Amino acid sequence: MSSGRLSMESGAGAASTPRALPYFVASSQLLGLTVVAMTGAWLGLYRGGIAWEGALQFNVHPLCMVIGLVFLQGDALLVYRVFRNEAKRTTKVLHGLLHVFAFVIALVGLVAVFDYHKKEGYADLYSLHSWCGILVFALYFVQWTVGFSFFLFPGASFSLRSRYRPQHVFFGATIFLLSVGTALLGLKEALLFKLGADYSKFEPEGVLANTLGLLLVCFGVLVLYILTPAEWKRPPQAEEQALSMDFKTLTEGDSPSSQ
Amino acid sequence: MSSGRLSMESGAGAASTPRALPYFVASSQLLGLTVVAMTGAWLGLYRGGIAWEGALQFNVHPLCMVIGLVFLQGDALLVYRVFRNEAKRTTKVLHGLLHVFAFVIALVGLVAVFDYHKKEGYADLYSLHSWCGILVFALYFVQWTVGFSFFLFPGASFSLRSRYRPQHVFFGATIFLLSVGTALLGLKEALLFKLGADYSKFEPEGVLANTLGLLLVCFGVLVLYILTPAEWKRPPQAEEQALSMDFKTLTEGDSPSSQ
Repeated sequence: MSSGRLSMESGAGAASTPRALPYFVASSQLLGLTVVAMTGAWLGLYRGGIAWEGALQFNVHPLCMVIGLVFLQGDALLVYRVFRNEAKRTTKVLHGLLHVFAFVIALVGLVAVFDYHKKEGYADLYSLHSWCGILVFALYFVQWTVGFSFFLFPGASFSLRSRYRPQHVFFGATIFLLSVGTALLGLKEALLFKLGADYSKFEPEGVLANTLGLLLVCFGVLVLYILTPAEWKRPPQAEEQALSMDFKTLTEGDSPSSQ
Repeated sequence: MSSGRLSMESGAGAASTPRALPYFVASSQLLGLTVVAMTGAWLGLYRGGIAWEGALQFNVHPLCMVIGLVFLQGDALLVYRVFRNEAKRTTKVLHGLLHVFAFVIALVGLVAVFDYHKKEGYADLYSLHSWCGILVFALYFVQWTVGFSFFLFPGASFSLRSRYRPQHVFFGATIFLLSVGTALLGLKEALLFKLGADYSKFEPEGVLANTLGLLLVCFGVLVLYILTPAEWKRPPQAEEQALSMDFKTLTEGDSPSSQ
């Protein structure tokens, strides 16, 4: 990770890695791993663990979703903050790959729950959690496909990319937050189905799962907090700036000095 | 509402109201009112309506929370986008007042549910919804108090305000999104407690409440979408810019032309 060293290219505001950023990123990773571990602990301690066969197949669903659509998706969003001084193409490919991993893991989680429902004869897609989940999954797929064709496929022009970028960033953050929200709804559903009225007796499982819910919220907020400040964004490297200037000059007739 | 007219003061980027903004704001209001109406319809059609006495007291809770912490809180965030060309102090006071209304209505909703629990002998604060709700409520109070003392109380200096502003904006948006998420958890809880296994039979109440949940999500996303673009932010008025320049010159020794 290069986030600790000074950037060689001192373009506009690209002097160094902001001092507080590595601490926030480290905290987010610690929190993300805690959330994954706690989901595993919840499933292991109170739900009999994980297996692809039998009733334990359901448990594959929450674990895959938390690893894929919460932890890995969050990390994919942070790539441009962490690898600030790498070549843009490397960072882009890493961003796209992390999203592919997240998507595939989430797909396994999705197959697990549909397969489990089918075997047990349960209805599909009746709850708010499932509606939100399908929406998130569809949006995630669209966002990845559109993102790929604009930013990694060589076809899209510079100006098209610039116009689409803010939309990609906004919907990326939105889909991530929706994923966290959907996880909370699922957690709540799992608790109420199993504990019922015992939920109100502060059963250990309820307290553990509530704490997991709050930590999920904290992870979502922390990732959003790292994404927000303009000065924490990836600074354009010297050669990218030069390219962008040339392009501006060519297309808009501006002189590079007029900003 | 002045969002349709051109600004007289053409400071940096303060030329006019962005063309698409009024349509997005109008859609958000339509969506927000639909969400409030649908909450009322859900409580009226399937939960026996609203009253302060008896079992119907519970129903005061969801309605107040949706009006206060979702609709009014969302509108309070939009004030700086809608009243772009009013004096800053007027906009500030309106922003603070809308948050006071939201807080008071939410307080009534909070008292309603605690009072109902007490009368019925139910336990308090055991669920993830209640943990998130108390967190949101406490953060909302802190945010309002700190915001008031920095921005409306005359004591805070210009530079202190500038440093705190991004934090205030970030946590404002975060608290709003947490409020929407908490509302979804509450909705889900209310459905599972009453419908139980019938939820999976696509009962009309379940379908209506799921739709309400998705509309709540859409309202949250739309408000966030309006808040995000830099060019939709309230442009500084001519006299505010002059003041800020003078201040910068005085404190930092910069010349007003060096930006």
